[in-house]
Formats: sequence, C-alpha cells, structure tokens
Amino acid sequence: MYISETHIRVRYGETDQMGYVYYGNYAMYYEVARVESLRQLGLTYKELEAMGVMMPVLENKSKYISPAYYDDLLKIVTTIRMKPSVRISFEFEIFNEQKKLIHTGETLLAFVNISDGRPCRPPEVFQKVLAPYF
Amino acid sequence: MYISETHIRVRYGETDQMGYVYYGNYAMYYEVARVESLRQLGLTYKELEAMGVMMPVLENKSKYISPAYYDDLLKIVTTIRMKPSVRISFEFEIFNEQKKLIHTGETLLAFVNISDGRPCRPPEVFQKVLAPYF
Amino acid sequence: MYISETHIRVRYGETDQMGYVYYGNYAMYYEVARVESLRQLGLTYKELEAMGVMMPVLENKSKYISPAYYDDLLKIVTTIRMKPSVRISFEFEIFNEQKKLIHTGETLLAFVNISDGRPCRPPEVFQKVLAPYF
Amino acid sequence: MYISETHIRVRYGETDQMGYVYYGNYAMYYEVARVESLRQLGLTYKELEAMGVMMPVLENKSKYISPAYYDDLLKIVTTIRMKPSVRISFEFEIFNEQKKLIHTGETLLAFVNISDGRPCRPPEVFQKVLAPYF
Repeated sequence: MYISETHIRVRYGETDQMGYVYYGNYAMYYEVARVESLRQLGLTYKELEAMGVMMPVLENKSKYISPAYYDDLLKIVTTIRMKPSVRISFEFEIFNEQKKLIHTGETLLAFVNISDGRPCRPPEVFQKVLAPYF
Repeated sequence: MYISETHIRVRYGETDQMGYVYYGNYAMYYEVARVESLRQLGLTYKELEAMGVMMPVLENKSKYISPAYYDDLLKIVTTIRMKPSVRISFEFEIFNEQKKLIHTGETLLAFVNISDGRPCRPPEVFQKVLAPYF
Repeated sequence: MYISETHIRVRYGETDQMGYVYYGNYAMYYEVARVESLRQLGLTYKELEAMGVMMPVLENKSKYISPAYYDDLLKIVTTIRMKPSVRISFEFEIFNEQKKLIHTGETLLAFVNISDGRPCRPPEVFQKVLAPYF
Repeated sequence: MYISETHIRVRYGETDQMGYVYYGNYAMYYEVARVESLRQLGLTYKELEAMGVMMPVLENKSKYISPAYYDDLLKIVTTIRMKPSVRISFEFEIFNEQKKLIHTGETLLAFVNISDGRPCRPPEVFQKVLAPYF
C-alpha cells in the first residue's frame, strides 16, 4: 500500500456558526490530500487530465469524530490500500495539532476517458509510479 | 417514516472544471434538504439552536450515480426512516429534471446541548411534530 | 434600466464562526441574483454559454453594512443601469427580512466568445430582451 | 508600510465549469493572505478573537485581470499601506507561476469588541508589531 501525509490549515470561511469546520468542507480537504499524495509520487492530477483522463468521484464516506477548529493545522494521512484498477480508493485519517484522530474518510474514484466518458485503466505513468507499493 | 421534498437550483460556483457539480457540494445540498424537511413540519433548525440544542454531523455517505450540471433544478427527496433518539438519520435521493436518480446520500447527526456539549434527546417540540410519522 | 428581485435563504455552511454570513459568500449570492434576473426576462445564462458566449467577471465591489444571519431569507434587488455593450454591470442591494438594507455590491462582466476567448457583443437575443428597458 | 507574501495552491473545487477559479473564491484567498501576513509578524487572528476583538469586513474590491487555473501555485503580495486605526485596509496582488499579475484586491476591515459589538482600536500587541512599519 501507499501512504502519504499532507497538512492543511483551516480557513475562517471553512468554519460555520457552530465554531467548527463545516461538515461539507472535509471533501475538499480529501481532494487536497489526494492531489498532494500523487504529487509526492511525481504525478499531478492536472497532468492526468491533460493526458485525457479524469477521475470523477463515485462514493464518499466521512466519520466526524471530533471537531476541527479555525486555524488548526491538520495532518491528513492518505492511504491507497489496494492496487488501482478502473477504480481507486483513498482512505483519509485527519489528526489535529494535539495528534488526536478527529476524522476519517474514504473516497472511491473512477478513471474515465474525457473524450468518450467511458471508464478506463489508469494511464501507464500512473500505474508505474504506484507499482512499487503493491 | 417521514418523507419530504425540496428543490435546489445548481449555482455556477458549485460546478468545477469537469463541468459537473463538485462532489464536495452535495453535503450542503443535504443540509438544505434537512432544513427544509423540518421547516415543512413547522420547525426550523434555527429555533432548535435558540432552544440550546445543536445537531453536529457524525457520519456522512454519498453515492454519485450521474453528474448534476449547472442550472439543473434538482429534486431532493429526504427520508427520516427511524424515530430519532439521541441521533437522527436522514436519507437523500436526488433527481434531475429528467426524473433520473443521480445521487443518494445519508447523514447521521447527534442532538447536543450547546451549554455543556453533551448528547441529549431531541427537544419536546421536535419529538411532537415527528411522532405521527412513527 | 432593468430592475428585478430574487430571494435567497442563507445556508448553514455559508456562515462562519463569527455567526455571520462569511464575506466571501456574497459573490455567489450576486451570481444567483444575476442569473435569476436574466431568467425573469426569459433568458438563461446556461443558454448563453450554449450559444458560445461566456461572461467572465472583470470587477467586483462589496459593501457590508450589517451582517446576514443563518436562515435569513434575503431579498436581492438587481439593477442593470446602463445598456450592455461588450461589458455589462449589475448592481445589487440586499435586504433582510426586517427590510433593512444590509449589503450593496456591483459586478462588471465581459461578453467573451468561448471559441477564441475574445470580447464580443451580447448575443442578439440578449440585446432584444433588454432593449425595452433602455 | 508592511508588505508580506504568501502562496496558495488552487484547489479543484475552487474552479468552475469555465475552467477558471470561480470569482467568488478570491475573497477566501485574501483571507488566507491576511492571516498569513499577520502570522509572519508573530500574530494570529485566532489570538485576536481570543483577546475579545473580531475583524468583520466592511468593504471588498476585486479586479480580475487574467484567470487563475486549477493547481496554479499563486503568489499573493499583501500590503498594509496605512497605519491601522479603528479600521485596517489590506491590498492584494496575485501573481501566477509565470510571474504575471492576474488579480488585485482590497479589503477594509473594522476592529470590533466581541462583547459589545462596538468598534475599537487594535489590541496593543497588534499596534506594537506593526509600529516599526509606519
């Protein structure tokens, strides 16, 4: 499996009047975590789209264990547990600055040809950089 | 069980460069659907908070069946299947204007006392308006 | 000039921990107001894009007079004061349920050909529906 | 005057179907730039609120010169040109990776006592760290 880490600072506009990070904003944190996870392998999602492949989301799950607060510097641990086929699953664990696990999530995405909208395998380069981990 | 419907028009800023509604924006659609679902019972979430009870989200799940597009007038069917206790679960089905089911979701929320942050039962008025449905 | 009205209900996720609507969310309210303003003339922005014309924003200005709060049903009065040329300016006045003016804004947009990215005149149909007001 | 720099990576969810960063998302970039600008002086906005002072926005202005795109690493130059009194103005210049100026903005904020909602002077510590620059 492949594990990586990234950090995100909570923005004011991401909080709500409860004083917590709004529950709907975690999905964007996952997106940042996925993208940085690939970047650490030398890949960018931007390049994938330039190669004609997009990755729409099929499923998303979130568990809100404890709130995140304004200005928290969150650590997100991203895990790809299974070798990607026409689909890829990312798991997320979010820790606050007190190293407490406050949130878990999981996103399932498809590889899709932009030209015809059909499912496809990950591009060669994608398979190649991930191969050593599986 | 209690079933209600609400409609949401997709905003331009809710799309992403894939030309779809960004996957992270559905959670806010669920929020609108929950709030309008309660409003149709004569309750507002705003009043709940004024009574000293807030409803943080514990879990959220989404399935993205087909994309939603800019300016689509989406219909959201919201179902409360089980009588709320210290927790309440809402299920969502989202249909586009062609009456196609494009998305399903489920959100589990807690009732929490704002004063001490502890779980609590739903306020009397909340239990009362929902009672006929269970 | 052309004046129209639309209403927007403040979503929970649009508030921040100050308990107000986050200042960055007004721009999306303006977008909704512009789109509904055109829809009341029988035009949709979606159709404009389908005709090959997009309207990127050139300038935006906002004055925050008083806060908007969660669940407020805001009234937005949208004014097109001058006949559109290759640019169009929309002015916004936002009123709360106590009919208090809480916010003003102004957005300047361009008409741009999607095919070549160059400024253009508004499509015929756009000019036609607005003509009676100028 | 006081000038600082910060960098922001454009998120996928911040783009819209035009393929640009949605015009409403720049206000949040300004927020990040203000907060990081203060942090570089050893101050955090979070601490300001903990001292009982909040900074609601009074006015905001934006000029969109050229689009920002997905995954761009934007440089934001933030300038406080005048010594803050009961108000403070931040100016922003945003550059893309080709060092092109693509956007300018300006935000006027007030210092307000959280306890009574009344305008106030900046806290001592705030005045102290900024004093050398004016």
